Amino acid sequence: MAHLSILGTGNMGQAIAAVAAKGGHSVQQIGESDPGTPVTGDVVILAVPYPAVSAIIAQRGEQLAGKIVVDITNPLNFETFDSLVVPADSSAAAEIATALPQSRVLKAFNTTFAGTLAAGTVGPLTTTVLIAGDDADAKATLADIFTSGGLNAIDAGALKRARELEAVGFLQLTLAANEKVSWTGGFGLVA
Amino acid sequence: MAHLSILGTGNMGQAIAAVAAKGGHSVQQIGESDPGTPVTGDVVILAVPYPAVSAIIAQRGEQLAGKIVVDITNPLNFETFDSLVVPADSSAAAEIATALPQSRVLKAFNTTFAGTLAAGTVGPLTTTVLIAGDDADAKATLADIFTSGGLNAIDAGALKRARELEAVGFLQLTLAANEKVSWTGGFGLVA
Repeated sequence: MAHLSILGTGNMGQAIAAVAAKGGHSVQQIGESDPGTPVTGDVVILAVPYPAVSAIIAQRGEQLAGKIVVDITNPLNFETFDSLVVPADSSAAAEIATALPQSRVLKAFNTTFAGTLAAGTVGPLTTTVLIAGDDADAKATLADIFTSGGLNAIDAGALKRARELEAVGFLQLTLAANEKVSWTGGFGLVA
Repeated sequence: MAHLSILGTGNMGQAIAAVAAKGGHSVQQIGESDPGTPVTGDVVILAVPYPAVSAIIAQRGEQLAGKIVVDITNPLNFETFDSLVVPADSSAAAEIATALPQSRVLKAFNTTFAGTLAAGTVGPLTTTVLIAGDDADAKATLADIFTSGGLNAIDAGALKRARELEAVGFLQLTLAANEKVSWTGGFGLVA
């Protein structure tokens, strides 16, 4: 069984915590307003909006050394809802990996709405977590945690594929914001 | 009823033609090796690989003026299968729109494998065609043709969203090439 720390207590953090707990794993949840509590998990989920990540890295960068760090963000320009705030040829995950060279950074969960993580389903499909990263063992560890909690997990390739995962997440957010799909729907994956 | 011309007789062109015919629309199919046959459709589907598009534009650019032109390509670097050949802040569709200023260019079908167009389903879901473009009437025309053929269609926003659609298509191709999903599966959309 794994021990996770989840930074962020919003709907994504809660949903991720619930799936991990369902799989029998122990979960430490830490609120954004609680920067003094040390991270104890071997797997750390950054379940905060993208603009909050840099402060976490500044506060906790050393604590995160040696750990699997999971970026779940969709780095939208929330004023325009029409672009991302990271460079077109990069990704939030790539920027976080550069800032945390001692950590094994993965991208995951940004293509699944909180509602589909909580339900475990997207319509008739089991919810699939797409995981990108450069460390195969780290990806397998994360996949095992969430498949034991009832989800599907797919290795989406190297961390550079985070760029495409962030495009999927961005597109899905625009579809929901424009009421083309509901916040309990969106993309599902058929193997 | 609409009249379509489909340039390209590969598995995508055939599947798109079959759906349109099923919806009661007339379809002209033109092979790549037949550049002399004039395009007669009001809606023209460029059902060819991205590297073949520039020759079509050179040959038929004037014929395509005033028409709805649909780009279905995924502009992958097929040598590396690891990047797109269009600039990171652009898309194949944007480049085609620039080359065809007299046409109403749409992006569609690049997020659906031929098998899911032919079947009309992705696993338990009805196949959804995501359409991006700057002309609302053109998008509605295309959507009507393919919903009458039994598919779902969703307006994915302005033509600039082609960048995200191409990221979805790229990611999906890498997942299939790496046997994470089958060529009859991939992304489905739950409204």
